[in-house]
Amino acid sequence: MTLMTAEASGVYVIGATPFSDDGAIDWNSLDALTDFYLERGATGLTVLGIMGEAPKLTQAESADIVRRILGRVDGRVPVVVGVSSPGFAAMGELTAAVMDAGAGGVMIAPPPTTRTDDQIFAYYRGAAEATGAAPIVIQDFPLATSVQMSAGVIARIVEAVPQVVSLKHEDWPGLEKISTLRAPGGLPRRISILCGNGGCFLPEEMERGADGAMTGFAYPEMMRDVIAAVGAGNMDRALDLFEAYLPLVRMEMQPGLGLAVRKHILWKRGILGTPALRKPGTKLGAVAAAEIDRLMTRLDRKLKDLC
Amino acid sequence: MTLMTAEASGVYVIGATPFSDDGAIDWNSLDALTDFYLERGATGLTVLGIMGEAPKLTQAESADIVRRILGRVDGRVPVVVGVSSPGFAAMGELTAAVMDAGAGGVMIAPPPTTRTDDQIFAYYRGAAEATGAAPIVIQDFPLATSVQMSAGVIARIVEAVPQVVSLKHEDWPGLEKISTLRAPGGLPRRISILCGNGGCFLPEEMERGADGAMTGFAYPEMMRDVIAAVGAGNMDRALDLFEAYLPLVRMEMQPGLGLAVRKHILWKRGILGTPALRKPGTKLGAVAAAEIDRLMTRLDRKLKDLC
Amino acid sequence: MTLMTAEASGVYVIGATPFSDDGAIDWNSLDALTDFYLERGATGLTVLGIMGEAPKLTQAESADIVRRILGRVDGRVPVVVGVSSPGFAAMGELTAAVMDAGAGGVMIAPPPTTRTDDQIFAYYRGAAEATGAAPIVIQDFPLATSVQMSAGVIARIVEAVPQVVSLKHEDWPGLEKISTLRAPGGLPRRISILCGNGGCFLPEEMERGADGAMTGFAYPEMMRDVIAAVGAGNMDRALDLFEAYLPLVRMEMQPGLGLAVRKHILWKRGILGTPALRKPGTKLGAVAAAEIDRLMTRLDRKLKDLC
Amino acid sequence: MTLMTAEASGVYVIGATPFSDDGAIDWNSLDALTDFYLERGATGLTVLGIMGEAPKLTQAESADIVRRILGRVDGRVPVVVGVSSPGFAAMGELTAAVMDAGAGGVMIAPPPTTRTDDQIFAYYRGAAEATGAAPIVIQDFPLATSVQMSAGVIARIVEAVPQVVSLKHEDWPGLEKISTLRAPGGLPRRISILCGNGGCFLPEEMERGADGAMTGFAYPEMMRDVIAAVGAGNMDRALDLFEAYLPLVRMEMQPGLGLAVRKHILWKRGILGTPALRKPGTKLGAVAAAEIDRLMTRLDRKLKDLC
Repeated sequence: MTLMTAEASGVYVIGATPFSDDGAIDWNSLDALTDFYLERGATGLTVLGIMGEAPKLTQAESADIVRRILGRVDGRVPVVVGVSSPGFAAMGELTAAVMDAGAGGVMIAPPPTTRTDDQIFAYYRGAAEATGAAPIVIQDFPLATSVQMSAGVIARIVEAVPQVVSLKHEDWPGLEKISTLRAPGGLPRRISILCGNGGCFLPEEMERGADGAMTGFAYPEMMRDVIAAVGAGNMDRALDLFEAYLPLVRMEMQPGLGLAVRKHILWKRGILGTPALRKPGTKLGAVAAAEIDRLMTRLDRKLKDLC
Repeated sequence: MTLMTAEASGVYVIGATPFSDDGAIDWNSLDALTDFYLERGATGLTVLGIMGEAPKLTQAESADIVRRILGRVDGRVPVVVGVSSPGFAAMGELTAAVMDAGAGGVMIAPPPTTRTDDQIFAYYRGAAEATGAAPIVIQDFPLATSVQMSAGVIARIVEAVPQVVSLKHEDWPGLEKISTLRAPGGLPRRISILCGNGGCFLPEEMERGADGAMTGFAYPEMMRDVIAAVGAGNMDRALDLFEAYLPLVRMEMQPGLGLAVRKHILWKRGILGTPALRKPGTKLGAVAAAEIDRLMTRLDRKLKDLC
Repeated sequence: MTLMTAEASGVYVIGATPFSDDGAIDWNSLDALTDFYLERGATGLTVLGIMGEAPKLTQAESADIVRRILGRVDGRVPVVVGVSSPGFAAMGELTAAVMDAGAGGVMIAPPPTTRTDDQIFAYYRGAAEATGAAPIVIQDFPLATSVQMSAGVIARIVEAVPQVVSLKHEDWPGLEKISTLRAPGGLPRRISILCGNGGCFLPEEMERGADGAMTGFAYPEMMRDVIAAVGAGNMDRALDLFEAYLPLVRMEMQPGLGLAVRKHILWKRGILGTPALRKPGTKLGAVAAAEIDRLMTRLDRKLKDLC
Repeated sequence: MTLMTAEASGVYVIGATPFSDDGAIDWNSLDALTDFYLERGATGLTVLGIMGEAPKLTQAESADIVRRILGRVDGRVPVVVGVSSPGFAAMGELTAAVMDAGAGGVMIAPPPTTRTDDQIFAYYRGAAEATGAAPIVIQDFPLATSVQMSAGVIARIVEAVPQVVSLKHEDWPGLEKISTLRAPGGLPRRISILCGNGGCFLPEEMERGADGAMTGFAYPEMMRDVIAAVGAGNMDRALDLFEAYLPLVRMEMQPGLGLAVRKHILWKRGILGTPALRKPGTKLGAVAAAEIDRLMTRLDRKLKDLC
């Protein structure tokens, strides 16, 4: 077991779930995908998030997938598991099971019914009682949850809930929030800030004090290299790299459709056996696929120029 | 197994889930509650809906509860099971399991991402492929799903999906929709229309052509008796009965809080061992409890006057 | 000019806007309606709210209507004017105009973009700068604005913005919020709490410390008499009165349709020349109208029994 | 007067509203901005949209601004005016006024309450009765209105409402919708399709059959040149150009904050006298301003390389 800590940094890839064309889980592709993420610079993995296709899995499949990934990763990096649930009993049970199996922490998003600062605070207090000693990642994703967490309420939670080690930052716009949290007095103690939104603001996020990315962009090496360049103080290099990929980042950020784009890219890159989504899921049309392919070709050309 | 049909009528009670104060399932109260529903006029039961506390159950607990209820009901009335799920695979698996165990049908609500008429239609076509031969209840509850189904799109689904036998009508306002569906040409074939919204419009709904109620109001006998009075053509009697209960209907309709009110009433009536909700759940304060108790006392007085 | 104060109590009726069948403003009915409200116990009027048909008026019509009502009221009760606007400049301009004309205060709802406690607080600070010395009513109506204001954030605003004299309380559920605000330490100074939601919880709201109602129910005398009965310590009498009207309260609370119900009742009572709404507006069907008429007849019968 | 037609193409710039630091309208900057848009390739202008700062204007200011822009444009290109309103009377009045003053058409977004296909269709029928002979642009912007219009319902409106000449396409994702509308049978007659979303998908939108852009990106020349390159069949050139600007497009697309970014760029480009927004409005922090400035410098460098 490799636990997530408040020092977590780098690229936590949100894992896709590979399926065959008939909707069965494609275990070979899952292994290949796990290997690919690690080879391309993942310093952690995040599975069973609120977006993507995890909600389409049965509970037994979810457990099998977590176990398979944990076995493949074999302790090399922490694996965070999404355990958001309407009930604390189910959340606690799932947390116990995945932590026993070797997970490195759990990620929890607030339900849409938590609206005021006090409600959000109380929710995380209750959730932490249910999840025990497991390290917690706060998932701050207003576009999906419709819950708006101010920097102040995040600080209150961090103060009161020692299990919180990280914030998955996916507010939009969100750059100022990172600056606020990282300013003196912004947080009562250090936690890791890992950014989502498909990597769309990664160079600026890093510069403002984030520790890395937590998102599923189909080229994890972009995130690895951008983070390294910012860390080396070479912002121009970071932006050059980032902007080469930005046309594809834009395509993956389309709500509802982005996952089909992501799987298409992973398939074209030879990682997935098929780009299929489980039903109900959007299928990428031929024109859209050609648009992506063209951008992938252009990316290859740009990357050659950048070397 | 007693299957739900397009002739379904009367009172399909949405079952509450009894818990002990420590959050464990209270099996004795569950049995007592099932008996109570049948004694007070339930012509069917609906379990694991999208509201209430079913989402707080683990998958194993859900299956156990369905089996326990099916055993207790023992085929006397159909038991409909909510199987709404982001994925058709999970929906199909759960449907197969509960129909094997003796359920009478499944209830399916559209996900919030289905917005246009075409999307709603396509969703139910896909869902029906996943659920096979199981009778389907369309759950039309815009306040919870944010999906607005026109009478026209319901008619299209009924035309294309022969498994659909019933509409759980919970639009608000929704009286005109019942009239539209029941007008000549409104639906391509007969289906049952059972109404939700806590029974708040039941007399008018019945008069406009509904077949009954599908809601969890803590006095099922109100719904039984109102339906009977409307059926007997005695609208004044129906309204007299209904209005005696309306102050409590109003209290149960409060979003988020209503379930605590409902459980408090069921507890005061001696059916539940405790009014506890599982965490996270609203607890009824002492003042609120006293307000409910006063209304219950007033109801008893009114019912005496009505006899 | 009669200014609204932190002692405001009783019935602040939200005024309907009468139109002719051709969509023109019906000035005679507006006068009759103003008279009717005052005769039936209004201790204040509220005009140009965010719901209803005020948004369908041109700016010139809005100003004419405010002037007409102010002239008719002639200082007998305070007239509060809704001035919610995306821009503080327009809000300030409208406030200056109506206060000059003799309004008693302004009502301000937060825009849907204000989500966190800090954003809500900052919004009211900014609004108060724009509206100068005018007494402010905070409009707390989450169902319409999607902004959830905790008791804590209301207290912060009351502390920082001396112009705030009243809270239009329309949270749902909202009874606990009244108790919280009225508990020792709940508010830094006294303000008036007037309740909306069509009067649906008026007896309990008064008992928990509200000062009155601010809503447009077509029978203002219900609110006057319920408030008086609670004030006299006769809760049973208050509930008897309230419950006689509750079947109609329920009909007026239907989102989108409720205003047509309200105008129908005011028309049947002889106050409005026609029940017409301006376009686009829902028209009450013949069946719905008959349902309302039946409830009005039943109400008359009940009121005779109550005397 | 230059009317908008179903052949409209090119760049319809959504105009910003310049203010001084004290919140007054900055008329000199407004003239400069109008000139700038035309010099940089605008084939039309769109003013008083539902986003941006038009809602912060008083009605008198709005009329003054429309007149000022119409005077400055002097018939060289059509000027479309946003007339969306909760009431058809106000919509009709505003339409009559601006068409009299020389506007080229009106843009209408559906209110959030129109949800089903039938409701959307009925809304545009009613709106067209109110706006008379004025050419209509349908504004399809689900992120702002929460109304999802299928290609089918747009086709129904185009069939029934001859005044409709254009669709402002701002669905997200929306590329397939363009293909569907442009496929044989997609629309009953030709209308213009102009795309929003800050230009973020412009190359692909043009390739799929759009006629141009309607958005307020601070570099209208990007849109002009991309459209020309696609028109010349040079997709690689179009993408090269587009991608040079994409890092800034991304910054302008941030909800709530994007307008401050846009005004900052227009100010740095020397068009606006100050980047000020009217209250309440987000102010760009120093760090954010520096991030934008860096991207502007990088853009200049890239544009040199592209020539």
